[in-house]
Amino acid sequence: MQQVRFDAMECPIARSLDVLGDWWTILVLRDVFDGYGRFDEIQRNLGIAPTMLTRRLNKLVADGLLERRRYTDRPPRDEYVVTDAGRAVRPVVLALYAWGDAHRTGDGKRMVLVDRETGDPAEPLLIDAITRFPLDDPRFVFAPGPAASDGFAARIIGTDERLTAGIDDPREVNPSRSRP
Amino acid sequence: MQQVRFDAMECPIARSLDVLGDWWTILVLRDVFDGYGRFDEIQRNLGIAPTMLTRRLNKLVADGLLERRRYTDRPPRDEYVVTDAGRAVRPVVLALYAWGDAHRTGDGKRMVLVDRETGDPAEPLLIDAITRFPLDDPRFVFAPGPAASDGFAARIIGTDERLTAGIDDPREVNPSRSRP
Repeated sequence: MQQVRFDAMECPIARSLDVLGDWWTILVLRDVFDGYGRFDEIQRNLGIAPTMLTRRLNKLVADGLLERRRYTDRPPRDEYVVTDAGRAVRPVVLALYAWGDAHRTGDGKRMVLVDRETGDPAEPLLIDAITRFPLDDPRFVFAPGPAASDGFAARIIGTDERLTAGIDDPREVNPSRSRP
Repeated sequence: MQQVRFDAMECPIARSLDVLGDWWTILVLRDVFDGYGRFDEIQRNLGIAPTMLTRRLNKLVADGLLERRRYTDRPPRDEYVVTDAGRAVRPVVLALYAWGDAHRTGDGKRMVLVDRETGDPAEPLLIDAITRFPLDDPRFVFAPGPAASDGFAARIIGTDERLTAGIDDPREVNPSRSRP
């Protein structure tokens, strides 16, 4: 395979993780989603060191995912509210919930996403909003976008070649592996 | 609000992050999903230090998300294939892609998830597989599971109270904020 270089940060997944890819960052966002927007509340819920929490909150504000709002002047206290970009992280949190629920709750379920109207547990499924097909259908593949460098495009196209052809095709070992 | 303590690791999201919440871990998984299962390939794609990559791969194997398979004996070389639990992480990766695509590609799209049969970009949407409602519908809420401690249940129920009542309701600032 040719060795065209690319910048790992070309990948939109890598860019998301550059903002979100921190244990505490996601858990702080989850707390704010859930209505816990004050420093003391988040700190208590997470049992996180105050200096660490301050750093995470500052980064979330700088990255445009949270906004600070003064809720009392004496003493001066701020709370945090999510922005549109912050709110858009919710599917990531729900996808993490779904994985943890399915693969890390062998000792019993402690939290369940339910339909408030029926009480039934939700079954998170990622689909294409247009065709309504599940995104794990092999019809969905990553393709280079207009701004991709040659190196990054080669990585993406190389992917597809690997998954669709070749004696050394890893899918022979693991048939479902080609699903996106 | 009462101050009942709970273990932050009761939360299935926290448990997922304990396994996945590392920038490199997710990117390594993404490479293996895409058919890059050999050490040298992953190392080249990510530009990650070999010792760091070894550590991440060992953790992914120990956590049951990847399996090692020897593909040649001279010299001894292994490749990595995903397990069922590893494959189930794919929605998390796709949710990260969707967020990065929507909020971190102001300088042009470099990678697009497309429908191979039509060429149209996919629009990732998380729904409940049973009712087909989007999971950001306010009908979906987290509820305590049977194994929740009192403290953890109080946190979840407190959440709901915050989001459904109260003069100090943060939704007054940010109306969509209550959506799960």
